[in-house]
Amino acid sequence: MPKPRAKLAKIGPTKSGAARTKTVLFDRVAFIGIGLIGASMALAMRRAGLARSIVGCARRPKTRKTALSLGVVDEATADYADAVTGADLVVIATPVGTNGMIAKAISAHLKPGAIVTDVGSVKQAVVDAVAPHIPKGVHFVPAHPIAGTEHSGPEAGFAELFDRRWTILTPLPRTSPKATAKIADMWRKMGANVANMQPEHHDMVLAITSHLPHLIAYTIVGTAADLGGDLKQEVIKYSASGFRDFTRIAASDPIMWRDIFLNNRDAVLEILQRFTEDLTAMQRVIRKADAKALEESFTRTRAIRCGIIEAKQA
Amino acid sequence: MPKPRAKLAKIGPTKSGAARTKTVLFDRVAFIGIGLIGASMALAMRRAGLARSIVGCARRPKTRKTALSLGVVDEATADYADAVTGADLVVIATPVGTNGMIAKAISAHLKPGAIVTDVGSVKQAVVDAVAPHIPKGVHFVPAHPIAGTEHSGPEAGFAELFDRRWTILTPLPRTSPKATAKIADMWRKMGANVANMQPEHHDMVLAITSHLPHLIAYTIVGTAADLGGDLKQEVIKYSASGFRDFTRIAASDPIMWRDIFLNNRDAVLEILQRFTEDLTAMQRVIRKADAKALEESFTRTRAIRCGIIEAKQA
Repeated sequence: MPKPRAKLAKIGPTKSGAARTKTVLFDRVAFIGIGLIGASMALAMRRAGLARSIVGCARRPKTRKTALSLGVVDEATADYADAVTGADLVVIATPVGTNGMIAKAISAHLKPGAIVTDVGSVKQAVVDAVAPHIPKGVHFVPAHPIAGTEHSGPEAGFAELFDRRWTILTPLPRTSPKATAKIADMWRKMGANVANMQPEHHDMVLAITSHLPHLIAYTIVGTAADLGGDLKQEVIKYSASGFRDFTRIAASDPIMWRDIFLNNRDAVLEILQRFTEDLTAMQRVIRKADAKALEESFTRTRAIRCGIIEAKQA
Repeated sequence: MPKPRAKLAKIGPTKSGAARTKTVLFDRVAFIGIGLIGASMALAMRRAGLARSIVGCARRPKTRKTALSLGVVDEATADYADAVTGADLVVIATPVGTNGMIAKAISAHLKPGAIVTDVGSVKQAVVDAVAPHIPKGVHFVPAHPIAGTEHSGPEAGFAELFDRRWTILTPLPRTSPKATAKIADMWRKMGANVANMQPEHHDMVLAITSHLPHLIAYTIVGTAADLGGDLKQEVIKYSASGFRDFTRIAASDPIMWRDIFLNNRDAVLEILQRFTEDLTAMQRVIRKADAKALEESFTRTRAIRCGIIEAKQA
């Protein structure tokens, strides 16, 4: 397969990252998956000058072509072995359901001393699926950048996606602290804040902040999609009142989200149970027309919003 | 009470409304309530030159002071009679639960030939509460501009709030078509699209597009607020993944929303029942780890989002 070299995008330091120094951390970085997250990481690495060369691995020819023509990657291939051979860093950036299979496929081709990381929204299942395939002398640092949009594919990627957002690392007891520190350094240089967490705890926090909200958004948009023709058209026409925000969330990549729910079932079902109880209580309050209870419920939620604004994540 | 004249803000036509012609539709407009919607309407009226003078009625001295100092209104008063006396147009822009009481209080002071309108997110209950107090010779045109933000008060108002958004009119059989046409003309000149609907049908459409999404957002943020200390702090810290959007919706004005749920109970409970059934089905699909069903659910919701983007309401 010919490997055309894409013109390197000349991306200078942005305003938000003006003081970034350019330190090459990796000679060769391989991305397995060049979607929104993979492409954004590649562009953020270029912005900070972290990699001498970047190779992307994608099954679809269109994805490879787009990633090359946009200067996201220097090389593109459909072959896992080709991609990871000689790479100092391998980033698995595909839906989490594929990660075990990918780890198995690349295992024999990983360079001694290389670091393998991922970007999965679920961590315990990824650790369980990937870790057994990591050979001795290769370091696995599980990671999850908490950032994204409802758009998919390399054309949706942008270097600023991780600026001031959190990336959570969930290193295993046997992960080399040096490798973990290097990945943390990489994320900081890409604009992110970094925190460490236990995989299981990560999965509970994300079940609340991300997985349940997405499940609810998908469900309510589905409820609307089931409405009769006229009413459905009106819902679309008059969506600018709350519903619109749900449709944006519910436009997120279906395969990615299918895999998240399949791989974080216990935490999602637990938090869904709590939510359903609370919603039933709210339903009763409305049925009883309990003005005081409604006002109290609606007032205390403002405090959480204030916390998010103070934490500069709004 | 002294009535200081505020300096008229010199707001020229904006880019989005460059071609607007300035036609005075009303000599004197009275706003009962100068919150986000009332203030935005006053500013949009000024932008289009629709009113010679605008008076605002608010209970709180701080609200009156802010509205005057920002040039939202020319006069401010706490007295309903003072406000509506001599007004050609009276806009009731307070939480819907107060509308009946306000209609009763202003009834005797309305000028013959005047138009009364409102901005309530619920229409049948407002019609039932207000219409009986409208004297013969005065025209009542119920209206609902589908626009807003999570912010409250006159300082949150801005002239562009209604640009390209829908305002729904729900005229009664006995409402003068001429008065309805004038209010439609006013909204169009303020940048909005205008549609007519039956009050009851409006309430069902809005239960889906607005009231249920708000109820869910309030509930999920409440579920998070009930979490233990550490977990709650982490939810705030790592909110940039779906939850954040819910907290924005759940930061909306509590009194306004309390009144909406009290006044649109039947439609909200009906659509909530459908949603709960769909959520239970989704829960079962996750528990059974039904990959195909999850993928199908998550794929079809994208079509609704595309519809909203096509309808230019995204």
